[in-house]
Amino acid sequence: MSTEFIFPSLQHPEAISSFVEACRDLLGDRVSTSPEDRLKAGKDWWPRAWLWDARGKVLSFPDVVVWPESTEEVVALVRLASQHRIPITPRGGGSGVLGGAVPVRGGVVMDLTRMRRIRELHEEDLLVTVEAGILGITLEEELNRQGFTCGHIPQSLALSTVGGWIAARSIGEFSTKYGPIEGMVAGLEVVLPWGEIWRTRVAPRTATGPGLMDLFVGAEGTLGIITAATLRIRRLPEMRRMRSFTFPDLAKGITAVREMIQRGVLPAVCRLYDEMEAAYRFSSVVRKGGPLLLLLFEGESRLVLAEDSVGTEICLDHGAQETGEEPMQHWLKTRFDVSEVEALLKQGAVLDTIEVAATYSRILPLYDAVVGAIQAVPGTVVAFGHFSHFYPDGACLYVSLAGFPGEDREGYHQRCWEAAMHACLARGGTISHHHGIGLQKAPWLGQELGEGLEILRRIKRAIDPHELFNPGKFGV
Amino acid sequence: MSTEFIFPSLQHPEAISSFVEACRDLLGDRVSTSPEDRLKAGKDWWPRAWLWDARGKVLSFPDVVVWPESTEEVVALVRLASQHRIPITPRGGGSGVLGGAVPVRGGVVMDLTRMRRIRELHEEDLLVTVEAGILGITLEEELNRQGFTCGHIPQSLALSTVGGWIAARSIGEFSTKYGPIEGMVAGLEVVLPWGEIWRTRVAPRTATGPGLMDLFVGAEGTLGIITAATLRIRRLPEMRRMRSFTFPDLAKGITAVREMIQRGVLPAVCRLYDEMEAAYRFSSVVRKGGPLLLLLFEGESRLVLAEDSVGTEICLDHGAQETGEEPMQHWLKTRFDVSEVEALLKQGAVLDTIEVAATYSRILPLYDAVVGAIQAVPGTVVAFGHFSHFYPDGACLYVSLAGFPGEDREGYHQRCWEAAMHACLARGGTISHHHGIGLQKAPWLGQELGEGLEILRRIKRAIDPHELFNPGKFGV
Repeated sequence: MSTEFIFPSLQHPEAISSFVEACRDLLGDRVSTSPEDRLKAGKDWWPRAWLWDARGKVLSFPDVVVWPESTEEVVALVRLASQHRIPITPRGGGSGVLGGAVPVRGGVVMDLTRMRRIRELHEEDLLVTVEAGILGITLEEELNRQGFTCGHIPQSLALSTVGGWIAARSIGEFSTKYGPIEGMVAGLEVVLPWGEIWRTRVAPRTATGPGLMDLFVGAEGTLGIITAATLRIRRLPEMRRMRSFTFPDLAKGITAVREMIQRGVLPAVCRLYDEMEAAYRFSSVVRKGGPLLLLLFEGESRLVLAEDSVGTEICLDHGAQETGEEPMQHWLKTRFDVSEVEALLKQGAVLDTIEVAATYSRILPLYDAVVGAIQAVPGTVVAFGHFSHFYPDGACLYVSLAGFPGEDREGYHQRCWEAAMHACLARGGTISHHHGIGLQKAPWLGQELGEGLEILRRIKRAIDPHELFNPGKFGV
Repeated sequence: MSTEFIFPSLQHPEAISSFVEACRDLLGDRVSTSPEDRLKAGKDWWPRAWLWDARGKVLSFPDVVVWPESTEEVVALVRLASQHRIPITPRGGGSGVLGGAVPVRGGVVMDLTRMRRIRELHEEDLLVTVEAGILGITLEEELNRQGFTCGHIPQSLALSTVGGWIAARSIGEFSTKYGPIEGMVAGLEVVLPWGEIWRTRVAPRTATGPGLMDLFVGAEGTLGIITAATLRIRRLPEMRRMRSFTFPDLAKGITAVREMIQRGVLPAVCRLYDEMEAAYRFSSVVRKGGPLLLLLFEGESRLVLAEDSVGTEICLDHGAQETGEEPMQHWLKTRFDVSEVEALLKQGAVLDTIEVAATYSRILPLYDAVVGAIQAVPGTVVAFGHFSHFYPDGACLYVSLAGFPGEDREGYHQRCWEAAMHACLARGGTISHHHGIGLQKAPWLGQELGEGLEILRRIKRAIDPHELFNPGKFGV
């Protein structure tokens, strides 16, 4: 076979075949070595892989795929893999966009999507315990049916799993009110590299030593395999209010949102689009040009009315013009739609999104620098952005890029990333707000973390001394 | 000298004297080997130590105390101590109540209270960067003067430092609105055991791998020395509303607060006292008996009014009777007053406080079990409690105990702790909500963390292989 693999398996065929045999004893037909399954398990939604794919290159080719159905099976598999020194890459929905779930040394991919039970829904405590492989949408629909919501609604809801959310330190699009995934995790069940299970005590808050649980949030499977989680949920909101505003310029929009959040007004959805992205996405529903702010308030009615009143006043004070409910409705209707992406890809475009974050005093220079840097890469047709998540101290900047660079599409893609990451770090931003690190952002992790990278290296060696858990990631 | 030390120094005198000499070269007269300084640096506010003290036993006797004034001096001291293999116990205000700052093997106590500068106050980002040794009250007063508040107001405000807050995973009494310390820390500067400085990137949120920063929050100095921190602050509130209610029983009070918080009403102060503690502390201002709830709402006026309206309605719906502003005013006036404690101690009482936490479905059985277990220890005169911090999923239970057990006061004290910790763990609570672990709670940490203790052990060995940073803690 003449296929070129970007990350070929580095495992010895004999070690693999004896491992596979042991897996079959354990799981029967929930073990596959078929090329189709292995190819599927070897990739996620990393745009770089599409470029390789178009040139007949295959991202990775793990040796075997397994589908455990219980924590005990995960434990047995971890022990087996440890005995045979086979790398394990845990996998949820495979919707990551940076290559985090790509097995770079072959070995076994552990697909957790058959661990998808809701173990317990606790109405009084507003807690739900689920297995890690449950799809976001399955959980959210079941919660909705019973009058609750997780409040964690990423664009990937239909594709991503709860375990994936936690492993990649995900965030939902309603986070300005409901917060990021690390605030929702009240408890974890993790299978550790030495084959034991850590079940954390579930408590509203604890001061029992270092924050160990947060170490597994964002670890992307490098320190343990998350098999279950207890998440904080909410009752469905009593009232919802939607607004939109156009601003004279982006600075005034940022200032208005900052003031709003800092005064305690927390819209669930709060998105500020630059003029170009606003025109691209909302010209059908907003006549007026300029940066566009979408707001969605929800919750207890009296609180929603108060937040809406304060929020609207602040926007108007900063020169905004109200543009009604429709843009927000439009966003709600279209936000899971990726058909436009598929159409552009067919035309040969290079597409990607790059999300970073910074404090308010840095966010506009960061926006100018990152968007400007990408626009300056030859081949770029458009680069625009919006601010998608807000905090009292700063915001997330989400940039979309499209280019038609001719032949050297991989080179162009890489140059965009280099330009964006360099601009971000130089302006004091963090290189990832919620997509994680994966393979795409790993080259810049050392600059991001500084001496923290040495801490991470030491922890990785201490927890996974044989480097079997999603190896080759984080540059450690 | 016939003094009995509970934790005598285990260091070799020659190693110490050559280390002390090197310290003097570095810090001049900011190095002390005087018995007074060493005795003072060898204790915190751990009540067990008072009992030993009364019998002429001394808790610990570190070999030397140093007062660095800059991060660079901390680095130099860490490198020196590492070369000489001398244990280092960092120290803030020494207000911990569990023995966390007690140097159990002698060595050097690094007193950080001369590192007390405010490095930067960033109004736009609502961030302040301070050195770790600044006293809470110094910071809060300076912030107030400029129109801001930290929102972190522990009872120890006048004694404790920002570094101590972070190291012990502290919480303030306004946390139901403003959250715990880990949510306020936007950035850290930490000197690591290998003598390098980790300065984290300050960002509103980041998804750049595992949550490394949270590992130093609650580590009680065992993994590194916090030399500076960037904290999220707020503007001073526009409006404040105070209320109090008595409830027919504790269950109705808990249910009302739970409903309030779960519907998004977040009073800054929210404290529910059982009947006995309510009578003890508030009989001068509340005629009616029964469990007492204190509420203080603050912030943007329209939001405060909405929260107050919803909160009051919920309380009344659950059978509460309103008892005015005065109990809350009384609490605000008296909360830093510990004269009552001193008077009781003089009479020979054994006193302590034990704080734990649990989810709502467990909190009342936990209350009954913990308070009942302490009351059942022979010698107990009173044990009562209040719920001091609330979350959407649970609450903190804060129990006070007083006993006159006769001669065996240390034995009585230990029996109370054993009874309380056993009851807490058996009812699914966490053994520490905000006091940390120290020496007093360490025997139960293994039961609390389960396999997490092995994770902690591995991390400790990886980060501090010579076990020099606050050694002998956490049972690792």
